[in-house]
Amino acid sequence: MKHPFFINHGPFKLNDLLKDLKINTVVNLENDLINDIKDLETANKKHLTFFHSKKYIELASKTKASYCITLKNLAHYLPNECKPICVDNVLLLISQITSKFYPDAINDDFDNSVKQIKELTFDSSIKSGQNVLVGENVQIGNNCFIGHNTIIEKNVIIGSNCSIGSNVIIRNTIIEHDVAILDGCIIGKKGFGFFPNNQKNLRYPHIGIVYIGKNSEIGSGTTIDRGSLSNTVIGQNTFLDNQIHVAHNNKIGNNCIIAGQVGFAGSSTLGNNVMIGGQAGISGHLKIGSNVQIGGGSGVIKDIPDNSKVMGYPSKDLRKFLKENK
Amino acid sequence: MKHPFFINHGPFKLNDLLKDLKINTVVNLENDLINDIKDLETANKKHLTFFHSKKYIELASKTKASYCITLKNLAHYLPNECKPICVDNVLLLISQITSKFYPDAINDDFDNSVKQIKELTFDSSIKSGQNVLVGENVQIGNNCFIGHNTIIEKNVIIGSNCSIGSNVIIRNTIIEHDVAILDGCIIGKKGFGFFPNNQKNLRYPHIGIVYIGKNSEIGSGTTIDRGSLSNTVIGQNTFLDNQIHVAHNNKIGNNCIIAGQVGFAGSSTLGNNVMIGGQAGISGHLKIGSNVQIGGGSGVIKDIPDNSKVMGYPSKDLRKFLKENK
Amino acid sequence: MKHPFFINHGPFKLNDLLKDLKINTVVNLENDLINDIKDLETANKKHLTFFHSKKYIELASKTKASYCITLKNLAHYLPNECKPICVDNVLLLISQITSKFYPDAINDDFDNSVKQIKELTFDSSIKSGQNVLVGENVQIGNNCFIGHNTIIEKNVIIGSNCSIGSNVIIRNTIIEHDVAILDGCIIGKKGFGFFPNNQKNLRYPHIGIVYIGKNSEIGSGTTIDRGSLSNTVIGQNTFLDNQIHVAHNNKIGNNCIIAGQVGFAGSSTLGNNVMIGGQAGISGHLKIGSNVQIGGGSGVIKDIPDNSKVMGYPSKDLRKFLKENK
Repeated sequence: MKHPFFINHGPFKLNDLLKDLKINTVVNLENDLINDIKDLETANKKHLTFFHSKKYIELASKTKASYCITLKNLAHYLPNECKPICVDNVLLLISQITSKFYPDAINDDFDNSVKQIKELTFDSSIKSGQNVLVGENVQIGNNCFIGHNTIIEKNVIIGSNCSIGSNVIIRNTIIEHDVAILDGCIIGKKGFGFFPNNQKNLRYPHIGIVYIGKNSEIGSGTTIDRGSLSNTVIGQNTFLDNQIHVAHNNKIGNNCIIAGQVGFAGSSTLGNNVMIGGQAGISGHLKIGSNVQIGGGSGVIKDIPDNSKVMGYPSKDLRKFLKENK
Repeated sequence: MKHPFFINHGPFKLNDLLKDLKINTVVNLENDLINDIKDLETANKKHLTFFHSKKYIELASKTKASYCITLKNLAHYLPNECKPICVDNVLLLISQITSKFYPDAINDDFDNSVKQIKELTFDSSIKSGQNVLVGENVQIGNNCFIGHNTIIEKNVIIGSNCSIGSNVIIRNTIIEHDVAILDGCIIGKKGFGFFPNNQKNLRYPHIGIVYIGKNSEIGSGTTIDRGSLSNTVIGQNTFLDNQIHVAHNNKIGNNCIIAGQVGFAGSSTLGNNVMIGGQAGISGHLKIGSNVQIGGGSGVIKDIPDNSKVMGYPSKDLRKFLKENK
Repeated sequence: MKHPFFINHGPFKLNDLLKDLKINTVVNLENDLINDIKDLETANKKHLTFFHSKKYIELASKTKASYCITLKNLAHYLPNECKPICVDNVLLLISQITSKFYPDAINDDFDNSVKQIKELTFDSSIKSGQNVLVGENVQIGNNCFIGHNTIIEKNVIIGSNCSIGSNVIIRNTIIEHDVAILDGCIIGKKGFGFFPNNQKNLRYPHIGIVYIGKNSEIGSGTTIDRGSLSNTVIGQNTFLDNQIHVAHNNKIGNNCIIAGQVGFAGSSTLGNNVMIGGQAGISGHLKIGSNVQIGGGSGVIKDIPDNSKVMGYPSKDLRKFLKENK
């Protein structure tokens, strides 16, 4: 599948890429062409993927990628059809190669190509406020509201019957039908991901997007960062309150209710029907099941199975928390 | 009293309303007319109110409303003059009836009727920035400052000598004299209240307003949601720091000092002279007394009596917290 | 050194200032002229400083100020060359005198003197969006990006190669080269400092600035308040994520990484290479060493020595926290 927003500058000869970056491999890659970079789950034939942590053994063992950048001690988990390229710093190399494929995704300067919406041709059923700016490659469905001073930068698709508030900034995002985005939200910016370096941290490209399912609502002043290699996802009919921060690569299920000032550190997955109280924090790379309830102020640092109720910092079984704190 | 902002589409015959919503009652309501919907405390003769939790027994026993939607096991707490209408889901029914009275209060799309302030007639002592937008039914007092790109949507009253920053959005709000609203605040939006439903959550109308007392200050990036049936209130000379979230129906007293990133879940009441440290969270439906001090980072999930000092998550007596954490 | 932004209305005769404020001193100050007000560390000859807490004994004993407002029981810590002026409320008096020197620093109304950047003369290498407003005494380096609706109020210096997002508001701030300020930040506002008073809190002037070192990045929706008498500082190559609040007078070192929704209460100092997880809170007037790691959600209420790893509320040694919470 073609990337909906960023232009793929590939295919590249894998050998050439590695030579440029001064990587030696034992595998012979003379004639291998790669078309794209994907995560373990979505990668396919002629794609390059990466595998850097035991957390992802299951996904790695089933990947359909033809090539995988990985660590020596992880390579044997890959299927036979997937050629491992073993290096010491997986994330650094994948970042460097991603920059070759998608050089536009590393730059998040403001979109200088936007025009006043009144100068552009959109459906007459769309009601837009004053000083609304719209970039290239933007689609807006029928009967949408777009509030004052809102900036829809390039690479945004908005479904029908959406209500976008004022002072909102959106880029690299797909929004389904009947979604409300309240005032002051900032959606689709690059995530807080980089390689620390004492002179100047090295930013890596964020080629993921933000996807917001139908019937959802995003509260005022909320920020949702786009994913690095995979996407940041808000499910259907999921409601977020004000001042929430959803970092890159989080995937939130359907029918979730998330109260004000909650924060998601990144790359966690939530099931459906999850309720989270105000100011709770969800650490990175966790798996939260369906029908989970997380009390306000909780700090979640471990996976949570389906149908659990937890509270506390760190979060524990709700009854236990209440008993200990009578 | 007439609602200051939303148009009351009543009176309605109570019988007609209930028939439309397919509610059967044992009480005979053939000729009963209701003029308005109010909470237990402010309701009067010919008003409809609601009573759904034992928390409100005291208020319910004194209500002056003529009619009350309630639960079977609560009805006997109401005064004789108040006719109970017993249903299974009190909040759903009150929401549906409120939507009939105030259909405008369920819709929070951006205000498309605003005009540039320079095109409107306001007192010449008002200093306004560039691109300031003002809606219908707005009053602004003498000597006010209104910063750049600020949007004062319909239904706002601002007293004299107020300083409103830039990029602020206000609607459905009364602000008294000598108040400072710093940059980027969003005030008067509907609260985060709705009935969960697996296909599409059902939003209920928010007919309350935000009221901010004189001499108060609201820090940058703070959000204050308007109430559902009652109002959200910030007392006199109460100072809020940056990035605070005040959800719907909270009532904060006078001379309070509330540090950055504090969150209020909704429907709690604070006395006067309350001090709250940064990042503390106040759960919903609590009663916090006067002269209370709440340490930074605390999670308050119980009522707090006057003159208490608390800290912790959940919050406890401050000395106890410090002793346990030496 | 001349203040970069606020005009110093001094020198004043110290005797006249004190007489105006009805302060009697035992010291003879008939002919003493003061040129400026500074904190203990940066004060020099003919400067007035203040010393109100035992926390600052070390700094006080080395101050080069000629005069110091202090408490009776602290005066003996001052060097012989520094004349003490003993009062009951040090901060109130220093605030009143600061207001005489810098009357402009107490007022944070929006900057009414800004103009559209297109009407002003800046280097042609600068790319600016629509509706960008710029005040007096602003410098912008080569090759900068300034996003849509961004307001650079008076008294701002921006280095070369900076990328400022959209909907940003900046004042009283120095930004070095190669800095990224993401969308919706509010930087350089007065801090949340004032003297509580039951009728109307007394605001004190904030004559400090915000200083942001080169190669740094400030995430979306972050607020950084300027200092009161000293400055608020973000070091070089320090990255802040979204929705962070940095209150006045905090000094953050180089190469720090601070995750989303972290809050700093004010006047704390952080060393270099500090990493802070999401939603952590740092109390006021603390000293956090270098190479410190603070877990997400922590509440830090004590100093932390170099090379420590802490977590918890209140924060403690990380291993201890993990052991206690297995």
